[in-house]
Amino acid sequence: MPAPAEFDEFRDIAKRVNNWGRWGADDEIGTLNLITPEVVRAAASCVRTGKRFQLGLPLQQQGVQTGMIPGRVNPLHSMVALNYEMFGPGAIATSDDVATLGLQAATHWDGLGHVSHGGRIYNNRPADSINAQEGATRSGIEKVGPLLTRGVLLDIARLHGVGRLPGDHVVTPEDLDAAEAQAGVTVRAGDVVLVRTGQMQFYLGGDRDAYAFPSPGLGLRCPEWFHARDVAAVANDTLTFEIFPPEVDGLYLPVHALDLVEMGMMQGQNWNLEALAADCAQDGVHAFLLSAAPEPFVGGVGAPVAPVAVK
Amino acid sequence: MPAPAEFDEFRDIAKRVNNWGRWGADDEIGTLNLITPEVVRAAASCVRTGKRFQLGLPLQQQGVQTGMIPGRVNPLHSMVALNYEMFGPGAIATSDDVATLGLQAATHWDGLGHVSHGGRIYNNRPADSINAQEGATRSGIEKVGPLLTRGVLLDIARLHGVGRLPGDHVVTPEDLDAAEAQAGVTVRAGDVVLVRTGQMQFYLGGDRDAYAFPSPGLGLRCPEWFHARDVAAVANDTLTFEIFPPEVDGLYLPVHALDLVEMGMMQGQNWNLEALAADCAQDGVHAFLLSAAPEPFVGGVGAPVAPVAVK
Amino acid sequence: MPAPAEFDEFRDIAKRVNNWGRWGADDEIGTLNLITPEVVRAAASCVRTGKRFQLGLPLQQQGVQTGMIPGRVNPLHSMVALNYEMFGPGAIATSDDVATLGLQAATHWDGLGHVSHGGRIYNNRPADSINAQEGATRSGIEKVGPLLTRGVLLDIARLHGVGRLPGDHVVTPEDLDAAEAQAGVTVRAGDVVLVRTGQMQFYLGGDRDAYAFPSPGLGLRCPEWFHARDVAAVANDTLTFEIFPPEVDGLYLPVHALDLVEMGMMQGQNWNLEALAADCAQDGVHAFLLSAAPEPFVGGVGAPVAPVAVK
Amino acid sequence: MPAPAEFDEFRDIAKRVNNWGRWGADDEIGTLNLITPEVVRAAASCVRTGKRFQLGLPLQQQGVQTGMIPGRVNPLHSMVALNYEMFGPGAIATSDDVATLGLQAATHWDGLGHVSHGGRIYNNRPADSINAQEGATRSGIEKVGPLLTRGVLLDIARLHGVGRLPGDHVVTPEDLDAAEAQAGVTVRAGDVVLVRTGQMQFYLGGDRDAYAFPSPGLGLRCPEWFHARDVAAVANDTLTFEIFPPEVDGLYLPVHALDLVEMGMMQGQNWNLEALAADCAQDGVHAFLLSAAPEPFVGGVGAPVAPVAVK
Repeated sequence: MPAPAEFDEFRDIAKRVNNWGRWGADDEIGTLNLITPEVVRAAASCVRTGKRFQLGLPLQQQGVQTGMIPGRVNPLHSMVALNYEMFGPGAIATSDDVATLGLQAATHWDGLGHVSHGGRIYNNRPADSINAQEGATRSGIEKVGPLLTRGVLLDIARLHGVGRLPGDHVVTPEDLDAAEAQAGVTVRAGDVVLVRTGQMQFYLGGDRDAYAFPSPGLGLRCPEWFHARDVAAVANDTLTFEIFPPEVDGLYLPVHALDLVEMGMMQGQNWNLEALAADCAQDGVHAFLLSAAPEPFVGGVGAPVAPVAVK
Repeated sequence: MPAPAEFDEFRDIAKRVNNWGRWGADDEIGTLNLITPEVVRAAASCVRTGKRFQLGLPLQQQGVQTGMIPGRVNPLHSMVALNYEMFGPGAIATSDDVATLGLQAATHWDGLGHVSHGGRIYNNRPADSINAQEGATRSGIEKVGPLLTRGVLLDIARLHGVGRLPGDHVVTPEDLDAAEAQAGVTVRAGDVVLVRTGQMQFYLGGDRDAYAFPSPGLGLRCPEWFHARDVAAVANDTLTFEIFPPEVDGLYLPVHALDLVEMGMMQGQNWNLEALAADCAQDGVHAFLLSAAPEPFVGGVGAPVAPVAVK
Repeated sequence: MPAPAEFDEFRDIAKRVNNWGRWGADDEIGTLNLITPEVVRAAASCVRTGKRFQLGLPLQQQGVQTGMIPGRVNPLHSMVALNYEMFGPGAIATSDDVATLGLQAATHWDGLGHVSHGGRIYNNRPADSINAQEGATRSGIEKVGPLLTRGVLLDIARLHGVGRLPGDHVVTPEDLDAAEAQAGVTVRAGDVVLVRTGQMQFYLGGDRDAYAFPSPGLGLRCPEWFHARDVAAVANDTLTFEIFPPEVDGLYLPVHALDLVEMGMMQGQNWNLEALAADCAQDGVHAFLLSAAPEPFVGGVGAPVAPVAVK
Repeated sequence: MPAPAEFDEFRDIAKRVNNWGRWGADDEIGTLNLITPEVVRAAASCVRTGKRFQLGLPLQQQGVQTGMIPGRVNPLHSMVALNYEMFGPGAIATSDDVATLGLQAATHWDGLGHVSHGGRIYNNRPADSINAQEGATRSGIEKVGPLLTRGVLLDIARLHGVGRLPGDHVVTPEDLDAAEAQAGVTVRAGDVVLVRTGQMQFYLGGDRDAYAFPSPGLGLRCPEWFHARDVAAVANDTLTFEIFPPEVDGLYLPVHALDLVEMGMMQGQNWNLEALAADCAQDGVHAFLLSAAPEPFVGGVGAPVAPVAVK
């Protein structure tokens, strides 16, 4: 298996989008640094109607995971108390629950520690800064903090006049440009871009296997587009985030490596953009307040998130 | 053990604050109905500086639980992949993690199914609408959706000129009135009120046992204050939410029963209000945008939340 | 859905095999009482060659569960320490692991609390003696203790000259009689009977779905055969234990109810009898020492077991 | 921190007890190879009265772990179905449960992968043959198989005329010799030796902290005694197995390294030997059949076991 750096195109893009050292040698959050107070104020000013959208999938055993990715288990919820009269018969009763889940099983953020290549994670740190005892000692998901900024929806399926892109559709910078133009919005520094492929319709329609694979997704050249606009993060409505099977034979997960390792930019997966996209298509407004702080698992290389968009 | 309804004061307050049927027989979210688009717009208009505050505690084995509440286990995080070259040697490597946690172990919302009394949960539904197979079939935490509204901090510790209220301090409606006046803000319908006791300083200082118990907290008469103002939800910085041990001998968790069962109003616990409170004390601004959607575990009687306040 | 007691045959058999009160009103282990010291001594005397057989399946994500039974999750194993030099660089390093698993997901015993009917479990106890806080407060799997006795293999597949019985084969008392005769052994009080169908060959061959369903298994009339011989427990090599789909339309899990509730006799499922059966076919010896103590989960309605047969 | 090999005594003993290659380069089970069919037959012949002893502790939240060892969580048991009428109202109802537990949290075997030193595990394999995705790819606990052999109790507490050895008592080869003589039994190849310190009395008496630490346990010179007699495995009634804090300043877990890495001999911890020891003291018989197959978690570096002794 050739290392990603042996692929010319990957290597060249990697150089151009690399952010190591940009926010100092101690930085652990990468492009989230681009969310300044000004950006947050501008995000708040996007709220016009007060209409809210939930972008997270329900957490349940019948989640999006099919068993294809070892260990990434769907949420298992169970009760540890059920109308329990802890303080005696007739007293007020309590119910309590626990869950076990893959942190990247449902609607989630990939933390910067999720991927390494050439033995390195973001900001030139050694891959073994992640260990079994502590998880990610650098760039753990708990470092992300209160993520809230402007969100912009780029609806690539709608751009192509379909409800769902075909499984082999590679989202390109040209797609992003055209969707941005169609949206009538300019992507700015600190934005989180939500890229809709429509693939989620498979899962919502009950077909987990079709949802998983093959999947349309972001192509190898997209990270440079995001880098040029200095976006804070990108999320979409697929399991794999990037096109899968991959564009280039033998080059697996290049977008992950460019985003997470080179740029230090988090990726969101399994986001449900259907209701939001329908609304954007109707009112023509594609920018909104986006609140999407991950659950702060210490050492997490990813985490569930319950994102909210407000227009 | 006398049932709560055998206590006159409880019974009388329960009658006055009861919201069953107020939003229809099918309603499952209670006072969250009070968060209207107007409320959301007003919340967004609170954003002036763009300063953000994370109110969730890090999720970790060394969390706030001491073992006092059976089954409510601190988060256990473990790696299921560690720089794993899934696609062959030299390829891009991935790390993945899983977690097991009590849904009410850390910073969380109590869902409306968390408490029953007299065999009933909110909106006159039978307590056994919660079962081991499905959890809460009515008012499950996944019904909450995109919770974002105005937040108001009422700092009771600061009101009393202390960093941390003593363990036997019962927060009263008079405290809430005085803190509201000191804050220079009027609590409105649809707000989420954050009540600071300072108890969190114990946990942040490393003393879990002192944090747990005894604890200052909301008193029996507070729910009526919240009901009068039609607040959407209330959260604070303690493990028990209400004063514990309780004010009235033999009457355990009355505030839980009034809030969750009678009013249909969610409660937040273990919220870290320290940085936000310091900022409010400094700039005198106690109202802000609050984003606090719970993780949507299907059937959950509670859920972790990563709340964000923005000023 | 008619209650099982509305089926005449079920009701009649239930009366004849009922053991409630047989070992006293306080008894929680039912037919395990039949394993006397004499039985144990006789079991030990079965050891002639010292050859040992492992009857438990490996515990792994790729276990026998297909998701058909909600919550019965295959084992998830993860590392919480990996060559961790807890005591400093260069020191001896340790690795540690955790697991989450359905207690009845793999090779297991059904405890007497696993099934109720008519609101009752074994020994006329109320079904709600099992609760979410404590699990089974009566007849919990931790009460089983050091289960070791004589085992007898009845190979029904071999009896019929096949490697694997067809999916609709109902094992009958006549099958058991014939297999006993073929085995040249007399089933005695306190024995654990292992009934081989060959269905496990599906799972071992990589086909979990075929293994699950449809499945040959014990028929409605078998419990009476076991009762007549006073066996201590019965295990087999299927997921469902009894024939599934059921023999009688609308009567689901009658064998479970007869064995667990009426007789107070544990059932073992997903036991791998292939190597043992091959050996028995070869040497003609079908009785052996069987050691099969369940993991003593307090309040468990079932538990994993790592059974060992010794000839 | 000096590596263990820098301690002369450790290095010398390590050389003398090393079993690498003894059962071939491919061997993964070490001294378990010593359990031959002859040994098993002799074990069975120890059964005289048919009296059985359970040596495993109940699995529960209130288990022996105190939080001292990160990630080694006590068992958490919860119900995923509770008298659930899966097939309709009135039908037979089922209850099901799940658990999360540290594999070495309760009564367990340390697998050969539990410890490494100098980057090696048993049989000169690299420590990184254990990884986060698969656990132990060599000498995983699932390789152990049907462990059943002769057990011998050496009661060191009774030897010294106490119910429980003091926390600083180092068990020595001289102790083992004397206890063997007192027991009137000769330890033989293939035996599992159970060494009683009485420390378990703390846990059984409700004091987990005292049980954990300080703890009497096996001393540095014991492995050589076990090696000389070619025992198959050793278990005791403590959390730490060996004396803790350690005998030699700065040399942590030397017995673990000698047993697991050098000899390839499993260790058992948290075994409850109280009832067995009382019986042995009474009848003077210290050898018995011991059945102790670990739960076969694939890749496990340890596993729970429900050991049974039969006399």
